[in-house]
Amino acid sequence: MSFTADRLLLFGATGDLAQRMLLPSLCALDADELLGADVKIIGTARSEMSDNEFRNFARAALEKFLPADRRGGMAHFLNRLTYQTLDATTLEGFDDLAGKVGTPARGLAIFLSTAPSLFEPTIKGLQHAGLDGPNVRMCLEKPLGTNLGSSCEINDAVASAFPEDRIFRIDHYLGKETVQNLLALRFANILFEPLWNAAHIEHVEITVAETVGLEGRVAFYDDAGALRDMVQNHMLQLLALVAMEPPSSFDATSVRDEKVKVLRSLRQVSENETVTGQYRAGAISGKAVPGYDEELGKPSTTETFVAIKAHVDNWRWKGVPFYLRTGKRLPRRVTEIVVQFRCVPHSIFAEKGAKMTPNQLVIGIQPEENISLSLMAKVPGLDREGIRLRSVPLDIAMPDAFTGLHRRIAYERLLLDLIEGDQTLFVRRDEVEAQWEWVDAIRALWEAQTLEPKTYTSGSWGPSAAIALAERDGVTWHE
Amino acid sequence: MSFTADRLLLFGATGDLAQRMLLPSLCALDADELLGADVKIIGTARSEMSDNEFRNFARAALEKFLPADRRGGMAHFLNRLTYQTLDATTLEGFDDLAGKVGTPARGLAIFLSTAPSLFEPTIKGLQHAGLDGPNVRMCLEKPLGTNLGSSCEINDAVASAFPEDRIFRIDHYLGKETVQNLLALRFANILFEPLWNAAHIEHVEITVAETVGLEGRVAFYDDAGALRDMVQNHMLQLLALVAMEPPSSFDATSVRDEKVKVLRSLRQVSENETVTGQYRAGAISGKAVPGYDEELGKPSTTETFVAIKAHVDNWRWKGVPFYLRTGKRLPRRVTEIVVQFRCVPHSIFAEKGAKMTPNQLVIGIQPEENISLSLMAKVPGLDREGIRLRSVPLDIAMPDAFTGLHRRIAYERLLLDLIEGDQTLFVRRDEVEAQWEWVDAIRALWEAQTLEPKTYTSGSWGPSAAIALAERDGVTWHE
Repeated sequence: MSFTADRLLLFGATGDLAQRMLLPSLCALDADELLGADVKIIGTARSEMSDNEFRNFARAALEKFLPADRRGGMAHFLNRLTYQTLDATTLEGFDDLAGKVGTPARGLAIFLSTAPSLFEPTIKGLQHAGLDGPNVRMCLEKPLGTNLGSSCEINDAVASAFPEDRIFRIDHYLGKETVQNLLALRFANILFEPLWNAAHIEHVEITVAETVGLEGRVAFYDDAGALRDMVQNHMLQLLALVAMEPPSSFDATSVRDEKVKVLRSLRQVSENETVTGQYRAGAISGKAVPGYDEELGKPSTTETFVAIKAHVDNWRWKGVPFYLRTGKRLPRRVTEIVVQFRCVPHSIFAEKGAKMTPNQLVIGIQPEENISLSLMAKVPGLDREGIRLRSVPLDIAMPDAFTGLHRRIAYERLLLDLIEGDQTLFVRRDEVEAQWEWVDAIRALWEAQTLEPKTYTSGSWGPSAAIALAERDGVTWHE
Repeated sequence: MSFTADRLLLFGATGDLAQRMLLPSLCALDADELLGADVKIIGTARSEMSDNEFRNFARAALEKFLPADRRGGMAHFLNRLTYQTLDATTLEGFDDLAGKVGTPARGLAIFLSTAPSLFEPTIKGLQHAGLDGPNVRMCLEKPLGTNLGSSCEINDAVASAFPEDRIFRIDHYLGKETVQNLLALRFANILFEPLWNAAHIEHVEITVAETVGLEGRVAFYDDAGALRDMVQNHMLQLLALVAMEPPSSFDATSVRDEKVKVLRSLRQVSENETVTGQYRAGAISGKAVPGYDEELGKPSTTETFVAIKAHVDNWRWKGVPFYLRTGKRLPRRVTEIVVQFRCVPHSIFAEKGAKMTPNQLVIGIQPEENISLSLMAKVPGLDREGIRLRSVPLDIAMPDAFTGLHRRIAYERLLLDLIEGDQTLFVRRDEVEAQWEWVDAIRALWEAQTLEPKTYTSGSWGPSAAIALAERDGVTWHE
């Protein structure tokens, strides 16, 4: 569907995501002249607001969340905005909304940033008002359900109005530069792909560590937990990008065909391959913080930490564990992928007393985006006490390698792809369902075991069982 | 023969190499307390000199050629020196020399830094004076002959007094840190060895470029030429280290067994695989310089430049050209090895307009010692005009990676290995002979073709035919 939308309709326009990410991203794109001159943005939400009030609302969000040096074209951007109050639970308001949207010259992109409970009535309203034509595409934000069943319900509802090639499911991790760079690294260099398999890679670690606790997400989070909040979407997407076969082309079908193959190859997790945890009071960066149960105000069995030893059952990855861990109230905010290569099969320097460290590729996604490859080199010297080798990190630090380019918000890329109709970095239905299938089986296992999360002190790296999960295999989590 | 020598006998002690390299290296080792307290150094040459005069001579050399910050223990070092005048062409003086050497507590290392014509009489004199016992080792500097025949003569003469495991043939390139680091890179990292073959490497280039002309080497150089002066020894040693199979251990036998296999696998060069040149007047760094014939004062057919397309006929290197080139009066002083990897077999980014540069590993040996690996990375951005990839150099720069360690002279390492009896970085007889065999065949080809060197302007990269030699294969010399 290769049209470039000239109307963007934003549901949940007064919400947190709109303020923090969507409006700032759109403004930044505008400042860089990446939005067509005729692109109009229509916000909608339940709040009563005039166009001008919405513009003032947007200005406040931009001033709060967009760096000053990227706000150059703010006035120009605010002029693109209009607003329509809407109660999405009834059909009535949708005709007015359609009137506000008007007739796009080329097409309409709709971004649904609302509670999932509103998805179905919203789709119905859009159909009712004729906002579901062939020049309309639909973008959805997570959470898309809480298990395979509820996910299918949402997907079915959307599918009743839009075909899959006009549905854009956001996983904002895919909009991050380093995540895309992982693909460049793998497929634009001959150096890695021949080594990217069980013969040369010992294991892979994926960590998504947060320092925050519940924050304002009480209602949502206690129903979700770390597995559904982080693993089901972001971490499995990262795993799929690391593990996938080379696609024939960097296009939506080829890339997603390969990702879904990985997701479907995930071995069902067995007992002793997961550890769950829930944080207790402790300290982060020297500051005392309360426990999860205290924040919540009641006891809970929701996991705020999960570690999983995963396997991809195919030729390439036979026997290579993928260790995943994510949690709240961990010591440091970090999202990273560690690809741990095997030792050399035989050390010719062993008799000279040289110690070897296996090569490692670390892909940092948060808070810094960088890629670092460690290589062994000889320490200069006369080697009288034996040969000394040392691991030397080679940094492909983004700011160093590409100075003068400002860091973009992941949503900038994704919103532009939405407007222009490129699905490559969006998640296809079959991927979401494969993700849920694997995650649901883990939850079923926990229920069968009546597993309760182990407690861990805020500011630690989770329950000690999570350390043991890797150490049993002789693996120490990268820190 | 694992003894550590406590006497070092230096033939040619007043020569250029002794002044520039050997005395400074020994003094530097002493300053770092790497010479045993009882080590004595006996210089000998034809000049009449007392011990004190030799010490003054040595002091002058050290002040000229050793950086001030490494001369700390100079007085202590000079006290180790004694001197014996000797006419090596007659037996008579050797008894006095033996008296001066005295009886080593552990053993004697002899360094022969004299004209090759003196090798045979010197060996005879040493035998005559009993300086050829089982606790004596012999170190030889190039040139070891001018072809296979004369090389065998020298080697036979030395072998009549010393077994191969007490003969140390210096190729000072092997003492350089980066050359040893090449082995660490290849064999202490799993990243390279699986790719180190014809399937993944497109070609290898080895360049030894000098800016100097004849200098004071008139007599020697015009008889030798670039092929024998540089290719036969240094460049073939570098080629052997790049191309060799993994040795089972980093010891003298294992490493040299693998190197000689490569040297013996060199395919005999055919017509159109070599280019020779001789420099004419031109300019180096903006300064006018005369032509070779002018410096020599007569016409000559000696090559001051040679480029060769070599092949290693074994499974690993089938079809991978090794381009060698060396010359005088080239634009820049540089010794480097370039390992050019192949393109990725298929670009998944081609439809997005991305340009690919194949990976390259550049091992700089002179004037800077460094290793640089180029990788493709994605240029951050929204890719509206297609995906932009860029080659990013990752530098394993020695000074950066290992700050605080001073650069050592290659001879420091080699002299210490000689004293301690480690032959790993010395050239074995079978290697020298394999090198000559290949080089002699090239010279025979030139003679059969009555090939005369093409002229090239000083300050250029040699005759244009040398450019064409690589360009015919679609290869551009690295600059």
